[in-house]
Amino acid sequence: MGRLTARSPVTRIAFDETGAVARRRPDTLAVEEPLEIRVGGEPLTVTMRTPGHDVELAAGFLTGEGIIASGEDFRSAIHCGGPGTGLVFQAQAVGAASAQNTYNVLDVTLAPGVAPPAVDIARNFYTTSSCGVCGTASIEQVAKASRFDVRTDAVTFAAEWLAGLPEALRAGQDVFDKTGGLHAAALFDAASGDMLVLREDVGRHNAVDKVVGWAVLHGRLPLEGTVLQVSGRASFELVQKAVMAGIPALSAVSAPSSLAVELADSSGFTLIGFSRGRSMNVYSRADRVIV
Amino acid sequence: MGRLTARSPVTRIAFDETGAVARRRPDTLAVEEPLEIRVGGEPLTVTMRTPGHDVELAAGFLTGEGIIASGEDFRSAIHCGGPGTGLVFQAQAVGAASAQNTYNVLDVTLAPGVAPPAVDIARNFYTTSSCGVCGTASIEQVAKASRFDVRTDAVTFAAEWLAGLPEALRAGQDVFDKTGGLHAAALFDAASGDMLVLREDVGRHNAVDKVVGWAVLHGRLPLEGTVLQVSGRASFELVQKAVMAGIPALSAVSAPSSLAVELADSSGFTLIGFSRGRSMNVYSRADRVIV
Repeated sequence: MGRLTARSPVTRIAFDETGAVARRRPDTLAVEEPLEIRVGGEPLTVTMRTPGHDVELAAGFLTGEGIIASGEDFRSAIHCGGPGTGLVFQAQAVGAASAQNTYNVLDVTLAPGVAPPAVDIARNFYTTSSCGVCGTASIEQVAKASRFDVRTDAVTFAAEWLAGLPEALRAGQDVFDKTGGLHAAALFDAASGDMLVLREDVGRHNAVDKVVGWAVLHGRLPLEGTVLQVSGRASFELVQKAVMAGIPALSAVSAPSSLAVELADSSGFTLIGFSRGRSMNVYSRADRVIV
Repeated sequence: MGRLTARSPVTRIAFDETGAVARRRPDTLAVEEPLEIRVGGEPLTVTMRTPGHDVELAAGFLTGEGIIASGEDFRSAIHCGGPGTGLVFQAQAVGAASAQNTYNVLDVTLAPGVAPPAVDIARNFYTTSSCGVCGTASIEQVAKASRFDVRTDAVTFAAEWLAGLPEALRAGQDVFDKTGGLHAAALFDAASGDMLVLREDVGRHNAVDKVVGWAVLHGRLPLEGTVLQVSGRASFELVQKAVMAGIPALSAVSAPSSLAVELADSSGFTLIGFSRGRSMNVYSRADRVIV
């Protein structure tokens, strides 16, 4: 766990018939720290994240923005100020080993021939990273921008299997149990039924970026035949990140937004909300869900 | 309601002993649309928000970033492309009346003498708006940056009253009942016990910005003697926004992050988490909570 959780004293106040009782006790918190992602030394974005899997986070973020689409596009990453330099997995080791507060800048080197974000694009980055892009024109742009087509009829999902994903996600959430404070995202393979990867983070976008980053660094894009299960709501941006990684379906425990449904519709993407075990809502491409 | 909710057909799949049943029906979604905030014509940030109270959203955002600290600092705002131009409350009327997708750019004019965000600051904006600022040095900076001191011993909060705030917030959430998809934030006055304002949004930061924006436009800063109650978790950035508005206490239904607790500690701010009616956790300045 390490930096994933931190201990803090707390005053717990409980009410019963006799009144309120206050008691001092230790509590476990989910760690939140900033990570500045740089590309070729240029600052690109800062995100408040739970430390760990920082290289995946950066790789997933860059995938969502259309800068990279395979592990080959991503040459290396180092935590600035960290001991030594190195390739992707060395950088991961540095990140994993660090217990200090100083590993909060990660510099990514793209492969030769991969266009870095231009200055103007970098400006838009700040926009798209926190907010998604704007309006109907941009929805079409996003659908076009993805190098992968998620519109295929070749994949189907059994409703009964989908119904079990939120519980499987919850069962895999180590840190949530301790803190109650983390979002989670996991990737499931429809053919085998297996969970491929699960990540937790204080930021729900970060959890998805880490999952996608794991996949891109392992050469698994496009993520055909998979479902991305998330612990919270389905916003526009989460659908966007899934489409950019070639994932054909997103299932959320809570509500989708209007723009998430619009983007899913226009992308031929299966969007599920309110997946609660005994029921679920399918907002788009319900034809791929087999009842 | 208008643009707060949108209708969409959904395939609802429910499971019982006999198997799964799929049924097509209409569903209500929380609307999510981008808003670009400009200052003096210069794009500053884009946020995915639920339309409505856009002027408050901009005013609250600018307060959180330290650009304005009173209604006098904020001269006017117009939705670009909207009919006519006008002052703050005219702009609000435009926003409320618009049912089209085109009111997604709001241009703010600051009062003479109020320094607009510089280019470099604008660059950081994208950072701070989505992510907060970085690390320990910045925590001190934030505490210093606020024009208001929330460290006072002159305010106390009755634990029993605090325990009722989540229910009062929930009871005031019109849109959540229809969509299950909105965060909420509300401001409560400790002296009278009353709710001063409540706002809902797909983005939890936006809900807080709208509440703070309401207050700054009504000349109510600093918000001494108030509690900000939020429907979700307590992140670093929400504590930051509260401190910048002179609010001395934040109460969240869910968990705080480590950095939220650190900032609350260093600011002399009362931070409450897991406020669930029958119990709550006080993470900092518990001396102001009267049991």
